[in-house]
Amino acid sequence: MVHLAVIGAGYWGPNLIRNFSQVPGARVAYVCDLDSAKLAPLASQYPTLATTTDYHDLLRDPKVDAIVIATPVSTHRRLALDALRAGKHVLVEKPLAATTETACEISDAAHAAGRVLMVGHTFIYNPAVVKVKEMIERGALGEIYYIDSSRVNLGLHQFDINVIWDLAPHDVSIILYWLGQRPLRVSARGNSYTQTDIEDVAFLTLEFENKVMAHIHVSWMSPAKLRRTTVVGSKQMIVYDDLETMEKVKLYDSRVEALMLNQATRAELQRTYRVGDVLSPRLDVIEPLRAECEHFVECIAKGKTPRTDGNAGVAVVQVLEAATRSLKEGGRSIEIGATL
Amino acid sequence: MVHLAVIGAGYWGPNLIRNFSQVPGARVAYVCDLDSAKLAPLASQYPTLATTTDYHDLLRDPKVDAIVIATPVSTHRRLALDALRAGKHVLVEKPLAATTETACEISDAAHAAGRVLMVGHTFIYNPAVVKVKEMIERGALGEIYYIDSSRVNLGLHQFDINVIWDLAPHDVSIILYWLGQRPLRVSARGNSYTQTDIEDVAFLTLEFENKVMAHIHVSWMSPAKLRRTTVVGSKQMIVYDDLETMEKVKLYDSRVEALMLNQATRAELQRTYRVGDVLSPRLDVIEPLRAECEHFVECIAKGKTPRTDGNAGVAVVQVLEAATRSLKEGGRSIEIGATL
Amino acid sequence: MVHLAVIGAGYWGPNLIRNFSQVPGARVAYVCDLDSAKLAPLASQYPTLATTTDYHDLLRDPKVDAIVIATPVSTHRRLALDALRAGKHVLVEKPLAATTETACEISDAAHAAGRVLMVGHTFIYNPAVVKVKEMIERGALGEIYYIDSSRVNLGLHQFDINVIWDLAPHDVSIILYWLGQRPLRVSARGNSYTQTDIEDVAFLTLEFENKVMAHIHVSWMSPAKLRRTTVVGSKQMIVYDDLETMEKVKLYDSRVEALMLNQATRAELQRTYRVGDVLSPRLDVIEPLRAECEHFVECIAKGKTPRTDGNAGVAVVQVLEAATRSLKEGGRSIEIGATL
Amino acid sequence: MVHLAVIGAGYWGPNLIRNFSQVPGARVAYVCDLDSAKLAPLASQYPTLATTTDYHDLLRDPKVDAIVIATPVSTHRRLALDALRAGKHVLVEKPLAATTETACEISDAAHAAGRVLMVGHTFIYNPAVVKVKEMIERGALGEIYYIDSSRVNLGLHQFDINVIWDLAPHDVSIILYWLGQRPLRVSARGNSYTQTDIEDVAFLTLEFENKVMAHIHVSWMSPAKLRRTTVVGSKQMIVYDDLETMEKVKLYDSRVEALMLNQATRAELQRTYRVGDVLSPRLDVIEPLRAECEHFVECIAKGKTPRTDGNAGVAVVQVLEAATRSLKEGGRSIEIGATL
Repeated sequence: MVHLAVIGAGYWGPNLIRNFSQVPGARVAYVCDLDSAKLAPLASQYPTLATTTDYHDLLRDPKVDAIVIATPVSTHRRLALDALRAGKHVLVEKPLAATTETACEISDAAHAAGRVLMVGHTFIYNPAVVKVKEMIERGALGEIYYIDSSRVNLGLHQFDINVIWDLAPHDVSIILYWLGQRPLRVSARGNSYTQTDIEDVAFLTLEFENKVMAHIHVSWMSPAKLRRTTVVGSKQMIVYDDLETMEKVKLYDSRVEALMLNQATRAELQRTYRVGDVLSPRLDVIEPLRAECEHFVECIAKGKTPRTDGNAGVAVVQVLEAATRSLKEGGRSIEIGATL
Repeated sequence: MVHLAVIGAGYWGPNLIRNFSQVPGARVAYVCDLDSAKLAPLASQYPTLATTTDYHDLLRDPKVDAIVIATPVSTHRRLALDALRAGKHVLVEKPLAATTETACEISDAAHAAGRVLMVGHTFIYNPAVVKVKEMIERGALGEIYYIDSSRVNLGLHQFDINVIWDLAPHDVSIILYWLGQRPLRVSARGNSYTQTDIEDVAFLTLEFENKVMAHIHVSWMSPAKLRRTTVVGSKQMIVYDDLETMEKVKLYDSRVEALMLNQATRAELQRTYRVGDVLSPRLDVIEPLRAECEHFVECIAKGKTPRTDGNAGVAVVQVLEAATRSLKEGGRSIEIGATL
Repeated sequence: MVHLAVIGAGYWGPNLIRNFSQVPGARVAYVCDLDSAKLAPLASQYPTLATTTDYHDLLRDPKVDAIVIATPVSTHRRLALDALRAGKHVLVEKPLAATTETACEISDAAHAAGRVLMVGHTFIYNPAVVKVKEMIERGALGEIYYIDSSRVNLGLHQFDINVIWDLAPHDVSIILYWLGQRPLRVSARGNSYTQTDIEDVAFLTLEFENKVMAHIHVSWMSPAKLRRTTVVGSKQMIVYDDLETMEKVKLYDSRVEALMLNQATRAELQRTYRVGDVLSPRLDVIEPLRAECEHFVECIAKGKTPRTDGNAGVAVVQVLEAATRSLKEGGRSIEIGATL
Repeated sequence: MVHLAVIGAGYWGPNLIRNFSQVPGARVAYVCDLDSAKLAPLASQYPTLATTTDYHDLLRDPKVDAIVIATPVSTHRRLALDALRAGKHVLVEKPLAATTETACEISDAAHAAGRVLMVGHTFIYNPAVVKVKEMIERGALGEIYYIDSSRVNLGLHQFDINVIWDLAPHDVSIILYWLGQRPLRVSARGNSYTQTDIEDVAFLTLEFENKVMAHIHVSWMSPAKLRRTTVVGSKQMIVYDDLETMEKVKLYDSRVEALMLNQATRAELQRTYRVGDVLSPRLDVIEPLRAECEHFVECIAKGKTPRTDGNAGVAVVQVLEAATRSLKEGGRSIEIGATL
């Protein structure tokens, strides 16, 4: 039995408690928040749940195996390092930290402590994202050329972070997971239209080895919601539309079959495009957060490395940091350091 | 009666002949092509149409008022300048020229000759594009913030020009027409996946005065066709989807109403978004090319300046040229010279 | 303050308790279920909620003003009549009863007792349905010609009632509400494919005065979910699609403008169709069940007649009963008795 | 080489001439129309095409192998019988005749003459319809339960025939082709809203052996165009949407897997629905009319029976006739005579 303690009872904390409560082999023992008013309803809903406003209580308790951190990003460093030093496993909400340096510090501390560190990139546990990963792994797409993703809607503006830090963590974590590598260079352009210096629209470009490219459009200022990602490969192509209820993932058996090397006529060229079947595979029916919680418990119980471990968390922060820097420098390409 | 002569009987020439034949007050007198085999079917279809393989015949004929040039872009300079020198009005297919310098030369020659020069940016005569322009002009959108456009599909790859020169002329001409101004800076990133050095995917950013931004995604390598442009304003927003049959233009009465200046809570913020009616206005039912042909004839008959005159043609070429240069230089911002 | 007691803690009861708990001026005092295991979690969630397994406790309590009945339809008669006799107001889940006779008995009892009787036809409190009603009332559609509705999906099969009694109450209640009248005749055809004698697919036709017609397709055996209703009028037309997230209601300014009385040619006829703007009006953002609960409390407090009163509940049962009879008699038209 | 002569140069005749002109092994020799003004443009477009206003010229010409009849339905009988008597093969536009009796007369005459008789039910040559037929034939759907089809739009009203005779021939021919059998009974309900006695809205029900049912909704009075047919089988289900550009046919691996015989709980039942992959198969890219023309020529050349032969044409007319009769008799079921 893995005993968990959750820090942060705001918006996301109760979701984590609800999901962990349903995971076999797990038990949520404690919840902590500075605001005791947020603890009362949880206490009445989960009779066996202990509450505290001092997170040191959790760290001191030898029965607690793992700490789940669902607090603002500015507190991640202190809470995560304290928890690791206390010998606890840690699940920390995304993004892992506000800077690459801090993200690395936390990741290194987990390695040093020999504890599981997992970052809550929930989309990596979404059945649609996992299905696309499987298709890529078994070579269904051939060589991947580029990925294009749009995550736009009207609102909700944040006051402390720009739209890149709010929405792009999803796309960046998904893309790095699918490609299995980090970008060489990142650039971004965008603007702040309704607040000073907090961009509400941005376009990111990630350049990988072998000319693989990813483009991400995020916006809080778009009339119609979009959650649409296209993956173009040499053999087949995928569209993943998270707003679709029944057919979130579509695999297109479409490609450029054979381009003539000579100056062929337009009519001859048209014959070289293959447009074949479209397959929308059945997806597992599971709440992504539930799958994430199960994975964390399994990693602790079996000593496995999480799919979204410290390295994955660091890589996402690197990209967000580079993108924001590019944004402030007029869209200049920012190299991602090879050593990080 | 305006007498026209068409040079180029390839793919687009016959469309122009068909449409001009239906315009009251116009008469297609001549068609010219180097390949006489292309002339025969046109001659049998239009009994009063004279044919020739030598375009000087058209220039010499005093009955011909205007020359319509539907030939590869590399021939535009010579044909347009010769036609203008012969005192003819000129309609030239898009893009006006392969370089800004040549485009300016043609535009200047038209001014010097006092003849009508029009560029065939057909989308500017599309009822949907015209309707959006009307909405912008009457202030329905308020201050325009940004425009985002996607024009992607599988194929048709070109062998002499990249995807920017093939597809982006549509978006660039539409955006410049709507905004009524040229961008200050242009940048582009993209890649060539199936041919050497001919990009088949590209992302363009156009920066205008007052932080107005336009972003364009063009691709020959996408499984599902998209023709979708979003215009975000301070008061209302528009989505123009050219693939919709009934509701191509949608006006969203949506906006961010009033952002709190203090550190408002998330719950309070949500009340500041207005999501109102969506209006899809009735559009005129007319083939855009037909409207373009009528406009050209009207400009000649009444001495008016075309909506897509030489200046408009030059502006589009400037952007395409700058975008391609940016693409070759790693996405660097290219300033658009103020004097051009 | 209106004090309520809920009978039935199955699927729907907890939803009612949750919504009534949020209505100003209302207080849920009691919940009753034969299965005490269903009461425990409600008691812990609502500390002030009393529980019982004997519904007579509710009827005896003078503080209880109204009884909410969320039990199987076979129990409605006894519970509703007992509650009315005890002087309580009653909200009973749809359908009001399994037969027109019983429905009338309950409705009559409410009149005799001078108490509010409301039937839980939740869709009548759906903002989209209310908006369509407003459009019809202000004459936007002109004369209504016909309504066509599809409510199909895969499952959930019921074992005690056929698909008409399961799904059609929604469409029937909506249509009668919009038209403000009962049909003259009802017919239905359908079949049972996966169970004996319990139809899982049916097509209903309702005939009203002045040739107004409504058609309803309900099915538990359809691969893709549909919730789509079309209302055709002489001036304008509406499509209400409940699966749309942003544009549930669309008003089409489309009509047949003027049909030639002589044998006009096809070309002349085409000019007589008007296809105009499409307007998707902003809808109130409120959970329909919450609006229903507020309405019930308001009717009690102010002595108003509910929008879905006993008469409305009887009319729906009449149609369902006639449709089922028609189904068993090969699709024969069943007259709806004027006296009922 | 099969020599053809076309009677009727109205809307459809020129389409037939254009398509037959492209079929290898076929040659359109003659076109006939009472209105010589309609012949002139065809003569200039097809230099080798002879024209006449007297159809006896075609029948007399020994070089003519087959007559293509594209005239109003009231003339089909005389033209088809004369052509068959003259020893010609016949392709006649749909519907074959205005009554079952006449349709049979023509079909019998073709048998007696030993000539090919084909009816122009073009949809049977549509690649999407053919693909669905293949899926049904190979058992992909299991046992077919029911088919539901909607073919609605705004206009074009006809003056001589109701909406059933105008639009339903498509659905009826498709459904009979897929099922490979004729219905036992037909019923229909509908109304005429804008003309006297010419119904512009109708709902048809076709009942086949083994409880198989088909339902068809046709309308000239609907704001949004629909061309959507659902086929529900015991193993899999299909949606064929002719308005989709890329995914016209979707095969859903969905079904009710095993219904409990005892009074199972709702929760247990949910596990018995299978919702699996959705496959949208690649379709051949061919104009249906072109495929129809090729098939007619092939049947003549090789002595084959057309897919849409006289029997198929009679069966469609039977259903249309029965449906109209049912419509006039208040929706009564009309038995289709076994001997017809």
